[in-house]
Amino acid sequence: MTTKHFLHDPAHLLTTSLHSLTLTNPGLALDAANKIIYRRPGYGPASQRTHIISGGGSGHEPSFAGMVGPGLLSAAVAGTIFASPSAEQIRAAIMGRVEHHDAEGGGVLVTVMNYTGDVLNFGMAVETARAAGVEVEMVVVGDDVGVGRAKAGKVGRRGIAGTVLVHKISGALAAQGKGLKEVAKVARLVSENLVSVGASLEHVHVPGRAKPDVNATEYLRDREVEIGMGIHNEQGSSREEVELPELVRKMLAQMLDQSDKDRAFVNVNSNEVVLLVNNLGGVSVLEMGGIVTEVVTQLEKSYNIRPVRILSGIFMTSLNGLGFSITLLNVVNTGIGSASMIELLDYPCEATGWSSPVSTQTWEEKNTATRQQDASGGGKIKPSGLTMDNATAQQALTRALETVVAVEPEVTRYDTIVGDGDCGIGLRRGAEAILNRLKSHPMSGDAVVDVTNIVPIVEKEMDGTSGAIYAIFLHALVGSLRSQGPGEASPKVWASALKQSCDALSKYTPAQPGDRTLVDALYPFVDVLAHTGDVKEAAKAAQAAAEGTKGMKASLGRTVYIGGSGFEQVPDPGAWGLASFFLGLADINS
Amino acid sequence: MTTKHFLHDPAHLLTTSLHSLTLTNPGLALDAANKIIYRRPGYGPASQRTHIISGGGSGHEPSFAGMVGPGLLSAAVAGTIFASPSAEQIRAAIMGRVEHHDAEGGGVLVTVMNYTGDVLNFGMAVETARAAGVEVEMVVVGDDVGVGRAKAGKVGRRGIAGTVLVHKISGALAAQGKGLKEVAKVARLVSENLVSVGASLEHVHVPGRAKPDVNATEYLRDREVEIGMGIHNEQGSSREEVELPELVRKMLAQMLDQSDKDRAFVNVNSNEVVLLVNNLGGVSVLEMGGIVTEVVTQLEKSYNIRPVRILSGIFMTSLNGLGFSITLLNVVNTGIGSASMIELLDYPCEATGWSSPVSTQTWEEKNTATRQQDASGGGKIKPSGLTMDNATAQQALTRALETVVAVEPEVTRYDTIVGDGDCGIGLRRGAEAILNRLKSHPMSGDAVVDVTNIVPIVEKEMDGTSGAIYAIFLHALVGSLRSQGPGEASPKVWASALKQSCDALSKYTPAQPGDRTLVDALYPFVDVLAHTGDVKEAAKAAQAAAEGTKGMKASLGRTVYIGGSGFEQVPDPGAWGLASFFLGLADINS
Repeated sequence: MTTKHFLHDPAHLLTTSLHSLTLTNPGLALDAANKIIYRRPGYGPASQRTHIISGGGSGHEPSFAGMVGPGLLSAAVAGTIFASPSAEQIRAAIMGRVEHHDAEGGGVLVTVMNYTGDVLNFGMAVETARAAGVEVEMVVVGDDVGVGRAKAGKVGRRGIAGTVLVHKISGALAAQGKGLKEVAKVARLVSENLVSVGASLEHVHVPGRAKPDVNATEYLRDREVEIGMGIHNEQGSSREEVELPELVRKMLAQMLDQSDKDRAFVNVNSNEVVLLVNNLGGVSVLEMGGIVTEVVTQLEKSYNIRPVRILSGIFMTSLNGLGFSITLLNVVNTGIGSASMIELLDYPCEATGWSSPVSTQTWEEKNTATRQQDASGGGKIKPSGLTMDNATAQQALTRALETVVAVEPEVTRYDTIVGDGDCGIGLRRGAEAILNRLKSHPMSGDAVVDVTNIVPIVEKEMDGTSGAIYAIFLHALVGSLRSQGPGEASPKVWASALKQSCDALSKYTPAQPGDRTLVDALYPFVDVLAHTGDVKEAAKAAQAAAEGTKGMKASLGRTVYIGGSGFEQVPDPGAWGLASFFLGLADINS
Repeated sequence: MTTKHFLHDPAHLLTTSLHSLTLTNPGLALDAANKIIYRRPGYGPASQRTHIISGGGSGHEPSFAGMVGPGLLSAAVAGTIFASPSAEQIRAAIMGRVEHHDAEGGGVLVTVMNYTGDVLNFGMAVETARAAGVEVEMVVVGDDVGVGRAKAGKVGRRGIAGTVLVHKISGALAAQGKGLKEVAKVARLVSENLVSVGASLEHVHVPGRAKPDVNATEYLRDREVEIGMGIHNEQGSSREEVELPELVRKMLAQMLDQSDKDRAFVNVNSNEVVLLVNNLGGVSVLEMGGIVTEVVTQLEKSYNIRPVRILSGIFMTSLNGLGFSITLLNVVNTGIGSASMIELLDYPCEATGWSSPVSTQTWEEKNTATRQQDASGGGKIKPSGLTMDNATAQQALTRALETVVAVEPEVTRYDTIVGDGDCGIGLRRGAEAILNRLKSHPMSGDAVVDVTNIVPIVEKEMDGTSGAIYAIFLHALVGSLRSQGPGEASPKVWASALKQSCDALSKYTPAQPGDRTLVDALYPFVDVLAHTGDVKEAAKAAQAAAEGTKGMKASLGRTVYIGGSGFEQVPDPGAWGLASFFLGLADINS
């Protein structure tokens, strides 16, 4: 259990957190004295006659206050963390923070989760409002199957995340201008067709409270899960060392096994089922995804249930609880002509806490099209017409690569002094692989075709950052050579293409000459080749520059260690290796 | 640092988590081999010419894959946790997982966060694609000011949560059918106008990795915050014991202080600023709200910045990191006629990872209307015309309440044996308060007015569950008495109203006769009064029933301890107290 927080004072935390909802949605107002978030007058459909108010203890955000908005709740009342608001707060919400359309068949629907304090306080407020002549109905939601009938007794099921489906569906109906009786009926219908169960790896810590003793029962063991733990750390049905998929199997059995007489609260046998996988606040989104897939897989395999809607996210938290809950809604006929539960679930709303943006169309389209193209980019390479003598080219490249192989011990020695010692081996591995290829597949004489053939070998054989640098450079070179158009691949043409590739490379690495990297050998070669058209001169310049890295300080931090090094006694091994390649090349080209 | 997980195998976690996106949004498909989430053919606007691809290491969900959808990304490529995808994966996405509209001025925009591995691998893929003739641009996003210029050097700023604003804004422009050049230009413009900084209370644990040693530097001390910690646990600028508001002050200074030459990356002086407060995954929604308010308050007070959009939620995580980041976007002119950054930010999209449902209209409306009604329901109570002799009523109620006071020691004794001993005191406190009121405000003789006047006293003076039960009952009684209409408040009329109130009460508590609660005295009184119209008979029945609770077992668990008790030697104290009240009432009424 982590007891760390950015804000430790629970009263200040609560007030400022409620206030933030008016900042992230300016259509909302806060009655700070009564801890009520409500829709400002004019915010929401003008034809709405029935307004839904919910609430409960804080610590379950975005539930309640974050669900206030057009198409959802009209107001929410917050208690302190994990404690019911007072009847007086709730009464203030019912009487004064929503519009009253009693005479038009509208009214106020109060929904509350089934906890004693909440039911009594909301009930008290409802009775007062009714006594004052307001049309008001109350729906108590209990969806949790975590505690079975024997243990829960007359108290019934606790309310957990399934409650948000009651809010969403009845909220949509209310937004459509329906009367109180219909809205309340549908809210009850949703509530009666819900099953949920949670599982947590830890109790959650309430800001401002003391940290429990090390040996307190609040702590679960390292791989222990409490199945059925409530959203206020309430005891669940068992603690056991279990992980997916077994955990999901057990949870689904509690929700769906009709032979379990202690549970079997709802016979989920409809063709239409909604699945909600709710993050209790502290599970990574990555892990939630894995859980969703496991739940969906088992629902289909073990129960032949294929949910028509699958929602996942943070809907009702237990602060930053390291747990999740699964909810299934057995969709039934609402009896209200146009409004199916699914349509109402999909109906647009505007509330920062409702994060389910996928539209009816996307759900119903049953689009199963994929893009199956082989993306390897394989196939015949289109010749560029940029030609060179293929025999000379083969000879030059071979000599250049052999030089790299020959210089490996030297490069390795340098890199052992200044780096991790693998620079020379990497260069040699790449060079040998290309040499092998050249033996079986001689060069064609088309510059683009020949460079293109080398690229995958470099990619595959040369790893690390310098491998990536070479691969990027050669990829860019393919494009820049092609852009030269047909003609003779003269040194000047090569220089021009190489220059373009240097520019491309500079988009991906900040390395410039002077940073003690392979770029120190590359740029001078290209520059001199461009000016002189003489490969030998260019290679000499590269060698001199590589030599010159001796005494340089590596200026790129370890986060971009691109073959650069921090010591000064020897040349940069990457630059040295590349200069050797150029020297080998010049041997033939001169 | 919590190392607990529901799924421990990182490879399985990753695959199943990616797959879940196709479940929560059926418009998406997964190329499992290349870990690419992409929009199915036909999903998204037909006129879209430019497609945006992003990606990076996993563990930052919903970023990248969760942001794929119409109006946002066209595809996302995932590496393993906190590691770049390979160039080959990215190339597969560019070449084969989005549509190509090169000839129409469209193309592929690749956006990537500024980390060496990502930039190189995405760069390599971009160069390959370009060499293969695809129109492709790449934008590298670096928004984090956590590491200043001196330390970051040429590497530049890291990319963190501000990246999602680049995606959202350029994604909207792409959805509007704009060409590659315009989309890339705007993406760059957004990136260049971002400042972000994070703060965390803990390093985050990567599933499958070993737990660090207890003394490892990964652990922060109990109240220690690391300011500027990166989204892969990278080192920040400092570790200190700090909480709100001071923490926010320091973070904003790093983002906004133009005199800090090591930072001052963007001069945020626009009239239009967007604020994004991002949850790194493990902070409670409640606490995030408190942070948002603090940030907004200080922005206005210290910098005179009033953001035109305020977003908060989980946009880019560090798994379930116990931290948050603040991002400011300095809105500038895009130079593209109709498309302002704000319009593009608000533009509709459909992606499970983008949770910002508030519409332009709601933002722009500047609705400041509130509901200011006094909701106390005070004011003059409308008489019901249901009358009784006011002197007799006053005398009867007084005697009944005096009996409750008198019986307190006995009730307390019972409750000391079976409960927490406060039942008698609670009843006496309520009774005395009503007696006081009766002295200064004698009863009027209108049944509704007189009961209404008593309710707030009961609410205020009697606490606990039985106080709530009495308050609910009396509230209901006000309504049910009024529904009897004008006339004489005879015992039969009272009985009818009381019966209705019992029904109302049963909605809020499962307690029935036999559960050993105050209901054991209440129901017999009402029943007998209804049958006989004789208060004395009714009171005797209540007394007998209260006596009969001796020997009963409390059947409601401690979660609904409504004055009920688990022991059998004595009557239920709540029932005994209420029966005494009825006996006192009968004394006068007989």
